[in-house]
Amino acid sequence: MGSPISWDSRFARRATRITSSTIRELLKMAQQPGMITFSGGLPAPELFPAEAMAEASARILREKANQALQYSTTEGYPALREWVAAQLPNTQPDQVLLVSGSQQGLDLLGKIFIDAGSAVAVESPTYMGALSAFNPYEPEYLTVAMDEEGMVPEALEAVLKQGPRFVYALPTFQNPSGRLMSLERRQKLVELAGEYGVPIVEDDAYAELYYGGQKLPTLYSLDQQMRGGGEGNVVYLSTFSKTLAPGLRVAYAVGPRPVIHKLVQAKQGADLHTGSLNQMLVYEMVKYGLQEQLSKIRETYAARRDVMLEAMTQHLPKGVSWNQPKGGMFIWMQLPQGADAVSLFKKALEQKVAFVPGQPFHADGSGQNTLRLSFSNADPELIREGIRRLGRAAEEELELVK
Amino acid sequence: MGSPISWDSRFARRATRITSSTIRELLKMAQQPGMITFSGGLPAPELFPAEAMAEASARILREKANQALQYSTTEGYPALREWVAAQLPNTQPDQVLLVSGSQQGLDLLGKIFIDAGSAVAVESPTYMGALSAFNPYEPEYLTVAMDEEGMVPEALEAVLKQGPRFVYALPTFQNPSGRLMSLERRQKLVELAGEYGVPIVEDDAYAELYYGGQKLPTLYSLDQQMRGGGEGNVVYLSTFSKTLAPGLRVAYAVGPRPVIHKLVQAKQGADLHTGSLNQMLVYEMVKYGLQEQLSKIRETYAARRDVMLEAMTQHLPKGVSWNQPKGGMFIWMQLPQGADAVSLFKKALEQKVAFVPGQPFHADGSGQNTLRLSFSNADPELIREGIRRLGRAAEEELELVK
Repeated sequence: MGSPISWDSRFARRATRITSSTIRELLKMAQQPGMITFSGGLPAPELFPAEAMAEASARILREKANQALQYSTTEGYPALREWVAAQLPNTQPDQVLLVSGSQQGLDLLGKIFIDAGSAVAVESPTYMGALSAFNPYEPEYLTVAMDEEGMVPEALEAVLKQGPRFVYALPTFQNPSGRLMSLERRQKLVELAGEYGVPIVEDDAYAELYYGGQKLPTLYSLDQQMRGGGEGNVVYLSTFSKTLAPGLRVAYAVGPRPVIHKLVQAKQGADLHTGSLNQMLVYEMVKYGLQEQLSKIRETYAARRDVMLEAMTQHLPKGVSWNQPKGGMFIWMQLPQGADAVSLFKKALEQKVAFVPGQPFHADGSGQNTLRLSFSNADPELIREGIRRLGRAAEEELELVK
Repeated sequence: MGSPISWDSRFARRATRITSSTIRELLKMAQQPGMITFSGGLPAPELFPAEAMAEASARILREKANQALQYSTTEGYPALREWVAAQLPNTQPDQVLLVSGSQQGLDLLGKIFIDAGSAVAVESPTYMGALSAFNPYEPEYLTVAMDEEGMVPEALEAVLKQGPRFVYALPTFQNPSGRLMSLERRQKLVELAGEYGVPIVEDDAYAELYYGGQKLPTLYSLDQQMRGGGEGNVVYLSTFSKTLAPGLRVAYAVGPRPVIHKLVQAKQGADLHTGSLNQMLVYEMVKYGLQEQLSKIRETYAARRDVMLEAMTQHLPKGVSWNQPKGGMFIWMQLPQGADAVSLFKKALEQKVAFVPGQPFHADGSGQNTLRLSFSNADPELIREGIRRLGRAAEEELELVK
């Protein structure tokens, strides 16, 4: 009985779509001393409200341990459901489900909506983690071309005509592109999706991270306006990971009651409920310290974005282009056609700087000449030095494609 | 656009298997003032080490906030992986995956092993939550008859011959039956599963809750012994929910590296990782206070079990039978054939006492005359009064079947 078991032959068919991207493997190479990394979408840890959380967690565990440490309902901590509902237009607490990070929201949505072979519409590029969440349910992706204003309406309509199970959109400071969908495009998306009867999943993790400019209405709120009431066509996801702390794994899904009800049932089978202490801690924090926390984050990240953009202008060679995001954590960069971001990545590692090559954000396998830079997690001095290094690597790479 | 959307027609096929059991709906009726409830498998909250956790969480958030609040690896907190590995024979930390409750371990195992129509072997009765976890992957269940010593070998072999994807077993103080699989049956199970090439999923949530008697070896360790090394055929699940606190949602899966590797990839898409603070808090607690905590739990639960058994002898009518569990949280009760536990449940509610009818623990829909009583969550005085009330309800119910 000592012979090794061939597990691959025992796994379900979908297991072939449960894989690590080669990029994740590459990124492990970036864990070296002296590396400056713009790769992870990580919040700046020095901004975590650690002391306030230390006090709040101790207080909760002293005063409400029976609730914070016990099993709780799948739907989530009632006070936090109420808080979330109050942030959104025409929303009741029973339309809110607390989830273990937006990633779980995506997994559960995949579970209830995607059959093997179902079409799912995604932006191109889109959030890599959403593809990881949906892939086990074996969808076929329909990709929608974007420009700096978001999905191109003609491309979107062509895709909606093919009847996808839903369209997955990140309209606000998209991961990976940092793009902000314009108001006109938002209206068009909501209108077209309603017309074709295709639900929208709106992933709004970066909503609060705007640096000047006006906040645009969510797809969720626009859909309500257009319908003049009712529960609508949009499932809205957001998170406390970018505003408070990702390590707590608390996020939320909001939407039509039949969808939330089915998500609750799916979550019950998936992990019973999100950590009780975690939800209570988040509630204490949003109730007493969110605005101050947001001000700190916006000020710090805006300054880092500015430093990175300035350094890029100074150090990056001709032929490389990038956008000027109005919020979020990311700058999206294009190499000239023919240049390869993975090849650049390897050169950059030699220079001790890391980023994420853009191809895995593309469900259709395109985007070889794109890459994502995160500006939230390094201080200005390191950003300058890192971009200087990236400039050297980029010059080398561009030599090759001349 | 104001007309309501028919969501049911938009859901995936599997959504029809993502439902709440009628029992869960019934149990909501048990949330009334004055109700004595033996229904939930809830730890006694007065035993939670709340003060120690308050101190530990504050310390972690003051000294290691950058780690406790940040994204972390999918595999889990390294120190806790090491601790878990050290508890198990011949196990390395890279064979350990921290998960968000055993429930998530079950979901991820379903995801990587079950195709629509796959056979899965389960004990009869089995843990209801496992069925909820597996159902979305659309298995067909093969049920294995049990007696007080565990699965009956002949029934087991007949099922293994049908080539299930895995056999799911709760050998130690099973939920719901409280049964302890005998050593001989454990050996037989491991041997037969190896022979037929069927992996075992061992769910061992109650391992530490034994009240006297000797600890029996796990299926995981027996499999290793029989093989004389190698990674084996058993995926082992256990949890900190019953020993420390379920509200933290920290559990673990241990097994052959190819399985753990695939589970890690599946978990990455499902929720990125289990809460960082939660894992660090669990680590502090198991390192410094687990044995004391276990002593308290064992002493308290053993006393409650004894009180419940004594009260049952005193108050329950003839024709009703139950077992004498050597550990865990549950007593398993049988009504005479023809009597119905749901009908008894409704009568019990009138008497202000609740339990869980046994039918939803049966994948084949049998077990109408069975029910589960939990003794962990009520103090002795309430247990006596609750069983007195149950006795009255049972007499009424048995009148009907005479």
